[in-house]
Amino acid sequence: MIEINDNFLRLAPSYLFSDIARKVADYRASCPEAHIISMGIGDVSRPLCDAAVNAMLKAVEEMRHPDTFHGYGPEQGYLFLRQAIADNDYAAHGIDISADEIFISDGAKSDTGNIVDIFSKKTKIALTDPVYPVYFDSNVMAGRHDIEFLPVDEANGFIPPLPRKEPDIIYLCYPNNPTGTVLSRPELAKWVDYALSHKAVILFDAAYEAYVTSPDIPRSIYELPGADRCAIEFRSFSKTAGFTGLRCGFTVVPHNLYGYDSEGNRVSLHSLWLRRQTTKFNGASYPVQRAAEAIYSPEGKAQVRDTIDYYLNNASLLRQALNDAGLKVYGGIDSPYIWVKTPRELSSWDFFELLLHQANVVVTPGVGFGKYGEGYVRLTAFADKKNTQEAAERIKRLLNPNS
Amino acid sequence: MIEINDNFLRLAPSYLFSDIARKVADYRASCPEAHIISMGIGDVSRPLCDAAVNAMLKAVEEMRHPDTFHGYGPEQGYLFLRQAIADNDYAAHGIDISADEIFISDGAKSDTGNIVDIFSKKTKIALTDPVYPVYFDSNVMAGRHDIEFLPVDEANGFIPPLPRKEPDIIYLCYPNNPTGTVLSRPELAKWVDYALSHKAVILFDAAYEAYVTSPDIPRSIYELPGADRCAIEFRSFSKTAGFTGLRCGFTVVPHNLYGYDSEGNRVSLHSLWLRRQTTKFNGASYPVQRAAEAIYSPEGKAQVRDTIDYYLNNASLLRQALNDAGLKVYGGIDSPYIWVKTPRELSSWDFFELLLHQANVVVTPGVGFGKYGEGYVRLTAFADKKNTQEAAERIKRLLNPNS
Repeated sequence: MIEINDNFLRLAPSYLFSDIARKVADYRASCPEAHIISMGIGDVSRPLCDAAVNAMLKAVEEMRHPDTFHGYGPEQGYLFLRQAIADNDYAAHGIDISADEIFISDGAKSDTGNIVDIFSKKTKIALTDPVYPVYFDSNVMAGRHDIEFLPVDEANGFIPPLPRKEPDIIYLCYPNNPTGTVLSRPELAKWVDYALSHKAVILFDAAYEAYVTSPDIPRSIYELPGADRCAIEFRSFSKTAGFTGLRCGFTVVPHNLYGYDSEGNRVSLHSLWLRRQTTKFNGASYPVQRAAEAIYSPEGKAQVRDTIDYYLNNASLLRQALNDAGLKVYGGIDSPYIWVKTPRELSSWDFFELLLHQANVVVTPGVGFGKYGEGYVRLTAFADKKNTQEAAERIKRLLNPNS
Repeated sequence: MIEINDNFLRLAPSYLFSDIARKVADYRASCPEAHIISMGIGDVSRPLCDAAVNAMLKAVEEMRHPDTFHGYGPEQGYLFLRQAIADNDYAAHGIDISADEIFISDGAKSDTGNIVDIFSKKTKIALTDPVYPVYFDSNVMAGRHDIEFLPVDEANGFIPPLPRKEPDIIYLCYPNNPTGTVLSRPELAKWVDYALSHKAVILFDAAYEAYVTSPDIPRSIYELPGADRCAIEFRSFSKTAGFTGLRCGFTVVPHNLYGYDSEGNRVSLHSLWLRRQTTKFNGASYPVQRAAEAIYSPEGKAQVRDTIDYYLNNASLLRQALNDAGLKVYGGIDSPYIWVKTPRELSSWDFFELLLHQANVVVTPGVGFGKYGEGYVRLTAFADKKNTQEAAERIKRLLNPNS
């Protein structure tokens, strides 16, 4: 008999963004003339930079000729890309991460979802709430039910409290999705200290690190001493360089990082992730890896910087407009996400509906990210500037008709 | 405490092909002048066809411009590709599989490895032996230890016996990796009947279906009546169209296929795989999906056919030469793999070493695929023709010095 994994039945049957898409489609069907602006899903609008496109065109052309064709690559990723990452994202910032500690993949969603494969079913989990749903769902699927939620909201200034239940695995995402808030170096140091003293591992999602411009905000957890003994870091080229449709990211598993088997023996997490990836993954696409390498060239860096500045400018503009509309606004400084308190104690979904129907603007209901997200919505800075301005104006007019 | 998944410790610490690579590297270091020909790993040598390259160049160029840029795509894959597959791989052969039953991925290795996520830990597994290591390893990692091995060897004419232990999940790969043998339609029908009557699911790996030219050999399990109620089919563009470095494949999960939860309720496997993929995967690369679509164009089909014929010609040439050398040879007719009995009862690794040191030809030791692979080696037809001829001649000279 084909017995299924019953843990799937504990999951909500559909994904947040599918629900939003359906509501938007229904509204569009009833008002076909409406010009709907999406500030909801975290997809980028700016195209790929020239450096990445040109490198990829060259790599695709190589695939046409027997002498330059590339078949199976290393499951861990090509050294040319791993070395570029080690040099530019780590060594250049004084962080000691070697190319061999870097694993290239088809994106941070795959890696943050699959990483749970290497841990015991008995491990206890801590998550911030609100949170990126993949962390929670992938653990529920794997049969982990001992999950502690660490609230982040106005009451604690969006600084998560240390856990109470001694988790083995702690997910942190900074700059944060969905709140757009950040942790200072001393705040993040507390987590590293906690993890080291409790023999826990931090799964640090740094997908939005490129948006950090404040000097006192860490871009990598490895800026903190000891983090190489307690943290795995996930990064993505999606929001950094517009790779949402190309698919490339990477995960850092330091050689100094160990777990323990059921008899208490130390086991390298690097060796486990390598075994997982060599068994269940066959490497990222070669031309995509060449495109990723190109964003570390001088032109690539400048072009990527321009795009990030463009989005950060959108974020700043949105913050200002929403403030002017009388809303309480968080995030959006070192982050492409803006977290907005709903007016008049509206629920997340009610404010979502109001903005969709009255301003034709799509946002993401905060409660979709967890119960402490209730009473908030998330806006992203990834739309184009004109639409961002237009959406901001519409929201201002709706909430502040006399201004 | 970071408790690891102890099941990883039950795995062999390294992967078969890494062991081979190390032995080859050692030999190369000791004999740097040797011209080593690899007939071992299953990677292709012919470049990508023009239709695929041209489509991909166009898609990459689209990524440069805001109006044609593609960000996140559907996790299940773009409809343009799913429809091309449904039309050409299924409807054109009289098989009723809809685009909605097809899931595009970054390759069959990921899908055959990840599929176990949707089944209960308690499911019993049946595998042929020898077998593609991913099926075994991914189940061991997930904590499944009740695994029945179905021997395929000369004694049963490489026709696996039906299982004895009433497995819930049966892996079949035809044309077979590593033996290169095939199952006739009536033989495969027995498995479909078995699965239907025992409420088991067949995980059918059809990665090599493009090599089937004999009319009585099925290319899809869905050619058999009832298979849509008991089988998941995996396919890959790797060996069909040289996508080993691009990364694309697909998995068919029919709407008629159900499993059961622990209370005996029917649950759609399609809905579970969709949930798994939307949670832990973010779609295959857009330009790669355009390249895959192009192999279904008239030019693409002709170009892909030429490459497959080229490899099948290599296979035929290898079969002939190895026969002439006095070896017993299996497979290589509807398949790119040739399975060769070692001479003089040599072990797989001893024959591997003999061929490496005396003929400078790399093959894959059969025992690396399971204990019933002992006494065999696998050769592939994926090298270029000149090297294939040269390797065949060297083996003939080595084993038959007076011929």
